[in-house]
Amino acid sequence: MTGKEVEMGSGNESPLEQIFNPRSIAVFGASEKLTTMGTYQLMNLRGSGYPGKIYPIHPKLAEIQGLQAYQSVADLAEVPELALVTINAESAIRVFEELGKAGVKRAIVISGGFKEVGAEGRKREQELAEVAKKYGIRFVGPNCIGIINPWYPLNLTMYPYRMKPGAIGLASHSGTYVTQSLVYLEKFGIKYAKAVSLGNEANIDIVDAIEYFGEDEKIKAIALYIEGIRRPREFLAAAKNAGAKKPLVAVYVGGTVAGARSGSSHTGAMAGADEIYEAVFKQAGIIRAPDVQSLFEWSFTLAHQPRLKGNRIAVCTNAGGPATSLADALERAGFIVPEFSPALQDQIKKMVPPTGSAKNPVDMTYSIDLEAPYLKIPLLILESGEVDGMVIHGIGGGSWYQGLSEQQTGNFQFPLEEMSLWCDTVFQKLAKIPETTGKPIVTSSFAGREDSAVALVQDLGLPCFPTPERAVLAMAKLR
Amino acid sequence: MTGKEVEMGSGNESPLEQIFNPRSIAVFGASEKLTTMGTYQLMNLRGSGYPGKIYPIHPKLAEIQGLQAYQSVADLAEVPELALVTINAESAIRVFEELGKAGVKRAIVISGGFKEVGAEGRKREQELAEVAKKYGIRFVGPNCIGIINPWYPLNLTMYPYRMKPGAIGLASHSGTYVTQSLVYLEKFGIKYAKAVSLGNEANIDIVDAIEYFGEDEKIKAIALYIEGIRRPREFLAAAKNAGAKKPLVAVYVGGTVAGARSGSSHTGAMAGADEIYEAVFKQAGIIRAPDVQSLFEWSFTLAHQPRLKGNRIAVCTNAGGPATSLADALERAGFIVPEFSPALQDQIKKMVPPTGSAKNPVDMTYSIDLEAPYLKIPLLILESGEVDGMVIHGIGGGSWYQGLSEQQTGNFQFPLEEMSLWCDTVFQKLAKIPETTGKPIVTSSFAGREDSAVALVQDLGLPCFPTPERAVLAMAKLR
Repeated sequence: MTGKEVEMGSGNESPLEQIFNPRSIAVFGASEKLTTMGTYQLMNLRGSGYPGKIYPIHPKLAEIQGLQAYQSVADLAEVPELALVTINAESAIRVFEELGKAGVKRAIVISGGFKEVGAEGRKREQELAEVAKKYGIRFVGPNCIGIINPWYPLNLTMYPYRMKPGAIGLASHSGTYVTQSLVYLEKFGIKYAKAVSLGNEANIDIVDAIEYFGEDEKIKAIALYIEGIRRPREFLAAAKNAGAKKPLVAVYVGGTVAGARSGSSHTGAMAGADEIYEAVFKQAGIIRAPDVQSLFEWSFTLAHQPRLKGNRIAVCTNAGGPATSLADALERAGFIVPEFSPALQDQIKKMVPPTGSAKNPVDMTYSIDLEAPYLKIPLLILESGEVDGMVIHGIGGGSWYQGLSEQQTGNFQFPLEEMSLWCDTVFQKLAKIPETTGKPIVTSSFAGREDSAVALVQDLGLPCFPTPERAVLAMAKLR
Repeated sequence: MTGKEVEMGSGNESPLEQIFNPRSIAVFGASEKLTTMGTYQLMNLRGSGYPGKIYPIHPKLAEIQGLQAYQSVADLAEVPELALVTINAESAIRVFEELGKAGVKRAIVISGGFKEVGAEGRKREQELAEVAKKYGIRFVGPNCIGIINPWYPLNLTMYPYRMKPGAIGLASHSGTYVTQSLVYLEKFGIKYAKAVSLGNEANIDIVDAIEYFGEDEKIKAIALYIEGIRRPREFLAAAKNAGAKKPLVAVYVGGTVAGARSGSSHTGAMAGADEIYEAVFKQAGIIRAPDVQSLFEWSFTLAHQPRLKGNRIAVCTNAGGPATSLADALERAGFIVPEFSPALQDQIKKMVPPTGSAKNPVDMTYSIDLEAPYLKIPLLILESGEVDGMVIHGIGGGSWYQGLSEQQTGNFQFPLEEMSLWCDTVFQKLAKIPETTGKPIVTSSFAGREDSAVALVQDLGLPCFPTPERAVLAMAKLR
């Protein structure tokens, strides 16, 4: 790391600003062969709807994927703002000389074969860094999988990003958790504002990412996947600084012998003892997640829900099992699930069938009424002042109705459209309650986004997780 | 509980035998109104493909959902083997008199309004139990949601069961976890052999279910969701007895004040201190799961994978992040992730690109080769004798390819069918390795069943969970 240079013509000093927002990109290593990574990355870059200019660079081909190709950046009519390098390690060093001479100042190096493969690779990485230093090139990687900026839009990875832009800024030492995880995140509507796969961090590192994400107003929570921190002092300062503006959540996996060995083979990271990282996270105000699932779920919740101002939680559902699971999990997590005052219970009872319960948990039991459990009762409870937040199980309904109508052997006329519309109306209003009351709601549902109500609340920032207990774990992070 | 009567004409003495396998069913409470539960249950009973006879009983209607309806069981030409009762509590008692007089010996009472609603309901429940005793009726419920026997097939709940029959026997105090959870389980190919929602357990209880499931050869693992145990001594004996034949996994949620209060409103269960249940589970050899997600994932894994004979686990993947997460999580769970012998590493290295790692974790890094990481290397490692089991991340591939082909703007001819076929062939063989080597494999993938390879391995009994860490948690239960 050589310190930061001030960028001309950019409001943000970070070297990442131009990497996430380039007006033109030179792509090295793409062709039309389906066996090379660069081919997929160029495919995705175009598929993402990137509005800037793309210049494939190739020693032989005159056209790649329908675009005019060039033999060298020197042949271009302009100096591209970013270079994407997916060729082998030796060639990458040579290309960096070419980039430097042409005046290209930003790059992403996907290529592996550097520090992660041992002594020889380490030498190559040093060489790459030296060429970059000579020409003032700032770069992400090597041995990374690229970046995604859905707001631009720009996707330089080999996996499609098919969601809308979101509020999470992800910086990861694993490219897999930036890209392969996308099909998983799609199932919960967990969206990126920006994501970077850091790779070996020969130049730009996680500290740069935290500093940059801290300033980005579209990013409401920062998610970190860490195999090892190279600049602990700067990391601490950057995390504290960003933490004053938005929450940070991190997974650290280098604390075990096997984890450290694996990380070293992966990105050449030098991992440290678990307790040291635990202490650093604590001092920096970073919430530590035990796994990647929690990292994403908690970041999403923190990005969209108001903080808890107290410890009292209400439970509302139309199902007794989840009511009990939620109450049990909440108390285990240190929350109070207070029995409501008689006055409040009386008001709730008017909307609950006699077989249900109005005490807290509120259990509607079987009822096809949606407005009471998912709108009127939550609002009544949150406005009562008797609790500080709420967990709800059972978002959805349209998909159940759909399933029934498909399986029936009779001739029933299911009012599917009306049902779906009604669900959407109720849940849309529910999703807005946290904003108006200042109190968080986290939900769960066994249904996924195949149910339009689930998709709707998730897209409105109301977390909806697959099991009751996961909703409680996320709620606990809002304290 | 009045002790068991010996059943005539049935190989199994349990009162549940006929409830799960009735040749004829009388249905009380079904109509064509979409606001009553019985309507949906009759709909599902027929939709499930139940081959027996169905007799809707209704005071007024002559035909219901296209079936001839009767005013009373006394009007039927035969004595139905089972009655499904979904009418209100008062009427249910009256119907039990009618059933008794007609000679019906088995029932499922869905109706709520009994013990779970307080003193008056408790009285009603006692009355129901007494009528049953008078006539020798054995029944599930009241306040339950029914049973599912996909092997018959028979589905008496209001939720569609759309999967094939499986190997899990589920007994639950929550109907939600039997039914609403189905859409969740469908996403992981977790299937029931039999499932019963126990409700208030006025007659048949969880002890009966464990005894019955213990004898059922189609059931390879028993999953229990417990709000409170009414017969602890018998529970212990039944669990030990069944546990000699197959594993039992249980969630207990009554151990907190809020959980106990909620359970009491839900099924009238009397919960006990958490430590007591912990001790009972330990003595009975029951694996305790912290949540419903784990209950299902662990039961599935135990039902299909051989037990671990040692503590050494190999990790194999094509992604560095999951490799590190898996190694870290395994060590935290008390496993050893041994570095392979030089000889084994040399053999693996022949199949791994130079940027990957052959040490353990095996990390293929980016590679479109599937056979090496998902077939040849796993087999080589498991046959080497250097480990006792294996965790793999990254099942799938077809869906990624599909996604790319959809997003591309060029004119690429993706060999989608060949790719999908190749994936399926490789993963089908992988799924059979545990059987041939006697060593368990548990896998994870961010892709779900939208990827045919994921669906395929799950259907072959190879667990594939959404995150690496969940695979490790499940593996830990195979010790």
